[in-house]
Amino acid sequence: MPLDIYDKIMMLAKRRGFIYPSFEIYGGAAGFYDYGPLGSRLKQNIENLWRSFYLLKDNCVEINTPTITLHEVLKASGHVNEFTDLTVDCKNCKTSYKVEGIIDEGENVEDAINNDNVKCPNCSTILKDPYPVNLMFSTTIGIGEGRAAFLRPETAQGIFTNFHLLYRYSREKLPFGIIQVGRGYRNEVSPRQGIIRMREFSMAEAEIFFDPKDKTHHNFNDIKDKELYLFDNEKEIKISIEDAVKNKVINNQALAYYMYLTQEFLISAGVDSKKFRFRKHAPNELAHYAQECWDAELFSERFGWVECVGIADRSAYDLSAHIDSSGTDMYAMRKYDEYKTVDLKKIVPKMDVLGPLFKGNAGKIKMLLENMDLNESKKISVNIDGDSMEIPDNCYEIIETKEKIIGEKFVPHVIEPSYGIDRILYCVLEHNYHETKKKGEEYRLLKLNAIVAPIKVGILPLISDERLVKIAKKIDKNLRNKGIATYYDEGGTIGRRYARMDEAGTPFCITVDHDTLDDNTVTIRDRDTTKQERKKIDDAIQCIKDKINQ
Amino acid sequence: MPLDIYDKIMMLAKRRGFIYPSFEIYGGAAGFYDYGPLGSRLKQNIENLWRSFYLLKDNCVEINTPTITLHEVLKASGHVNEFTDLTVDCKNCKTSYKVEGIIDEGENVEDAINNDNVKCPNCSTILKDPYPVNLMFSTTIGIGEGRAAFLRPETAQGIFTNFHLLYRYSREKLPFGIIQVGRGYRNEVSPRQGIIRMREFSMAEAEIFFDPKDKTHHNFNDIKDKELYLFDNEKEIKISIEDAVKNKVINNQALAYYMYLTQEFLISAGVDSKKFRFRKHAPNELAHYAQECWDAELFSERFGWVECVGIADRSAYDLSAHIDSSGTDMYAMRKYDEYKTVDLKKIVPKMDVLGPLFKGNAGKIKMLLENMDLNESKKISVNIDGDSMEIPDNCYEIIETKEKIIGEKFVPHVIEPSYGIDRILYCVLEHNYHETKKKGEEYRLLKLNAIVAPIKVGILPLISDERLVKIAKKIDKNLRNKGIATYYDEGGTIGRRYARMDEAGTPFCITVDHDTLDDNTVTIRDRDTTKQERKKIDDAIQCIKDKINQ
Repeated sequence: MPLDIYDKIMMLAKRRGFIYPSFEIYGGAAGFYDYGPLGSRLKQNIENLWRSFYLLKDNCVEINTPTITLHEVLKASGHVNEFTDLTVDCKNCKTSYKVEGIIDEGENVEDAINNDNVKCPNCSTILKDPYPVNLMFSTTIGIGEGRAAFLRPETAQGIFTNFHLLYRYSREKLPFGIIQVGRGYRNEVSPRQGIIRMREFSMAEAEIFFDPKDKTHHNFNDIKDKELYLFDNEKEIKISIEDAVKNKVINNQALAYYMYLTQEFLISAGVDSKKFRFRKHAPNELAHYAQECWDAELFSERFGWVECVGIADRSAYDLSAHIDSSGTDMYAMRKYDEYKTVDLKKIVPKMDVLGPLFKGNAGKIKMLLENMDLNESKKISVNIDGDSMEIPDNCYEIIETKEKIIGEKFVPHVIEPSYGIDRILYCVLEHNYHETKKKGEEYRLLKLNAIVAPIKVGILPLISDERLVKIAKKIDKNLRNKGIATYYDEGGTIGRRYARMDEAGTPFCITVDHDTLDDNTVTIRDRDTTKQERKKIDDAIQCIKDKINQ
Repeated sequence: MPLDIYDKIMMLAKRRGFIYPSFEIYGGAAGFYDYGPLGSRLKQNIENLWRSFYLLKDNCVEINTPTITLHEVLKASGHVNEFTDLTVDCKNCKTSYKVEGIIDEGENVEDAINNDNVKCPNCSTILKDPYPVNLMFSTTIGIGEGRAAFLRPETAQGIFTNFHLLYRYSREKLPFGIIQVGRGYRNEVSPRQGIIRMREFSMAEAEIFFDPKDKTHHNFNDIKDKELYLFDNEKEIKISIEDAVKNKVINNQALAYYMYLTQEFLISAGVDSKKFRFRKHAPNELAHYAQECWDAELFSERFGWVECVGIADRSAYDLSAHIDSSGTDMYAMRKYDEYKTVDLKKIVPKMDVLGPLFKGNAGKIKMLLENMDLNESKKISVNIDGDSMEIPDNCYEIIETKEKIIGEKFVPHVIEPSYGIDRILYCVLEHNYHETKKKGEEYRLLKLNAIVAPIKVGILPLISDERLVKIAKKIDKNLRNKGIATYYDEGGTIGRRYARMDEAGTPFCITVDHDTLDDNTVTIRDRDTTKQERKKIDDAIQCIKDKINQ
C-alpha cells in the first residue's frame, strides 16, 4: 500500500521533531502523542494566536483550573450519566468496539444490531448486546476509599463552578467571557484514527455569559457583511453573517459572531479556506447540554471532514445544574434604572422545620426556595442530587408583600466556542504540506504561516569559516533577544540546510557569505518563492521583523 | 486567633481574582486550587520569565508530553516502588496521616513509633503499624482491565523516554537541554498546608544531558565571580561560584551554573533576596534517583523555609533504567577526532538460541549484550524488568577482534533543575505583600515586579465624562494592541480605583483628566512611590513601555 499523506506527515513530524508517538519505547499506547521541540512551539504559537482573538479582540479573561475534577461536579454537569459511547464486545476474540465506529455512516445503531449487521472487524463474529461505557478517566483523591474523581472531559466545568466569583470579577455586568486553555481527556474505547482521536488532548475553550434576553454582540455591526461557509448537511452555502442571523439560519448574533471569529482564527493559523466549512448539528447529534451547535470542520485526505471546533449555545443548562446541585447562588441580576416597588409573592422558608427534616440539604433548599419564581412554578419542589423533591407545606410560608427591588435575577446563558488544538495543528500541517522533486529526489516543504511557524528564521553561515560563523552567531543572538525564534545551523551543504528549514516550515533564512565580510550584507531567502534578496545586516533584521509582524 | 499573613493573602487572592479554592461550591477538596483571571496571568508571566532563562539564555528546547503515563515507564523510573509516604491509620477515629507530618522535626520515624510517641492529632490514640502508600494518582487506559497508568509525578520522564529522538534532534552533540512546563500530580495522604502542598500543581523542569566526563558549562566563566547564598544545614554562607566548585561545596560547574540561573530567575520574579537560600540535601533525604541535590528555599512566615526548586544531579540513573527496561538504544557517542583501530573483546549474541529461550525479551537482551563493556563487567548478566538475569553461555560467543571505531558509547548524565511554580507564585505574593493605613482604613498593596504583574497599567478616566472616556479607551486599545496588559476602569472614586490597582499589584496607572482635553497630557502614577508625572499621551505610552521593558 503506498503511503498516504497522513503517513508522510507523521513520518516528517517524527523526523523533524514535531510529533512522536508517546511511550514508544514501551510499545506505545493508542491515543497518546508527544510534541517534540518543533511541535511544542507550533502548538504554543497556535494557542497564543487563539488567545489574541479572545483576549485582545473579544476582551475575555483567562483562568486555570485542575484537570482532576470531583465526581460531584461531573455528576451535576451530566457527564457521569451522559458522556458515554455505546460499546460492544466480541465474545470470540475478546476485542471491544465503539459501535458507531464499526457500522456504516448514517446507519441506525439499533437496526444494525437487531439485524445482525454488526460483525467483528477482526474475526467476523456477529456482535450483540451493546452497552454504554463512560468515557472519562477515573481516579481517586486520597487513600483508601478516598473521593471519586475524573480527569476533566472539558475545561468548561472549571469555569462554570466559579461563575459567581467571575461574575463579581466582571463587576456584575453581562456579557463577559472567560477562556481556558489546557488538557482534556476522553478514554476512547478503541481509538483508531491516530492524532485525530486522542485520549489526552489540548483544548481551548471560551464560555461567554449572556443575558438570555440579549444575545446581541457589540462588534456585530463591524462584521455583519462578512461571509461564512455553511453546510446544512445537504449543501454548502456562502452567506453573509447578517443574512444568516436575519433568516434564522444561525439563531443569534452571538453565535454568528463567534463563528466568524473562529473562521478568522483558523484562516490566520494557515487552514486552507477551500478545506473549511461550518456544519450545523442535527437535533439528534446535539450534546446533552446544547441547544444549537455548529462545528467548524476541516478536510483531511485520510479522515474526510474532521470536527475541529464546536460552537454551542449551552443556554442555562450548566449553571442551572450547578445551582440545583450545589445550592450556590449563581444568578445574575438584570438591574433596573431605578428601584421599583412591586407586589411580590414570596416563599419564606422555616429553618426550624427544614433543618431537622433535611439536615445537610436544608441550606441548599432554603436558597432554592427563596429564589423560586412563584409565577412560573406551581409546585413547590426542588432538585436535590438530580431528583425532584416536593417540599412539605409546613416548611415554608407564602407571603404577599410590596417590596422595593433593584432588579430581577436570572440564570445567564452561555455561548461556548470549544477548539481541539491537536486536530487543528494536524490539519494545519496537512494543508501546508507540499511535495516536489529536486535533482530527482523527493523534496518536502511545510508552507506554514510565519505567525505559527516554530522557527521564524534559519541563520546559516555559507561555510564554517570562523569569520562567517562569528557574524552569523551575532545575528542569531540579536534576533533571539528580540524574541524571534531562530535556528542556527552550520552543518552540511547549504542546500541540505535549506532543505532542513523547508521541512521544518521555516519561512525565511539569512545566509552569511564571503561578500558579507566586504560589504556587511546578507541574503534573505524566502521559503515559498526560494528567491533571495541581498540586504545590509540591520535592514535584513528589520525586514524579517516586518515580514513576521512581530 | 488573629489572621496571619497567609490568611490575609489568600483572602486578597480570592477577592481580587488571583486564587480560588477548587470545587468550593461542592465543599472543596484539599490540595486543589483554581487560578482566577489575575492569578492565571501571574502564573503565565512567571512561567514565561522562566522560559526566557532556559530557552534564551541557556539554549534549551521545549517539549510537551501527556500527563497520563504508562505503568511501564514509572515502574522503570522507580516511582512505582519508591514514590511513597509512610502512612499510619488511627484505628479509633479512622483518620489517616503521613507519619512525617505528625512527628517532631528531625525525630526518627521508627523510634517514634516504637516508643509509642506518635499520637492521633485528632483523638490522641497511640498510632501503630505504619505502611508505605504510593503517592501517584492511578487510572486505567481503555475499558475492562485496560492498561494501568498514573498521572505523572514529574514531567521529566516524558523527556527521558524520548532521549534517543531528542539526541538526534540535537544533532548528536552534548550537552543539550530539554524543558517541559506543565502539570504534575502527587496524591498526598492528608495535605494540610494550603497552596504549599498541592495535589495537582504546575512544574517547570529542565533536563540537561551531559557527558559524565565533562560537567563543565560553557557560560561558567561569565558567572563564576557571582555569589550564591548557601545553607549547609548548620550555617548560612555566601560564597563565590568559583570557590564553591573549587572547594567541592558544589560538585561541578553544571550544578553551580543552574543554581546561579535559579537565583537570578527567582530574584527577577520578585523574590526577596533576604528570604532566599540554597540548602544541600543530606544523604538520607536524597530522592531515589539523585546523587546530589540543592533546594532553593524561600521563607514564608507561616510555613518557614519552603522548598521551591530542586536542582539535582540525577547522574545516569533514569536513562540506564529505561535502557534496561525497554531495551532501547539510548546511548550517546563520544566521537574520536578520527577512526581508531582497537583490540576489542565483543559479545556476539546467538539469536537462534536466545530467541526460543527468551521469546519477547530476546531482542532486548541482544541489544544489552552488544552494548556491554566486557572490561567493566565480569558477569554476563542483564536487567529484565528489574531483575538481574545471568545469560547462559551457549547464547553468545565472545570474540577478540580488531575494529575501526569512531567513538565510544556511554549513558549521559542529567542535571535537573525542577521548579514548583505554585509555591514560587505564593512566595512572590507573600514577599511583595504590604499593609498600611489610609484615612484610618487598612490599605493593602502587592508590590509585584512589572515583568510578572498580571496588569501592567490601569487606565482611568478621572470622571465618567464621555470626552475623557473616549480618550482613555483609545489609550487602552493602543496599549493592548502593543501586547501590554491593561485594565480599563471608570467605576467609583479615583481613590478607590487606585486602591483596586494597588491590591492587584498593578505597577502603573494612567489617568485622563480635564487638562487632557486642553493639552493632550495625562498623568502616570507609580504604585510604589504614589508619585504622579504629567506627560503627553504619546510620551506616556512610550514611558510605560520603557518602564515595563516590553
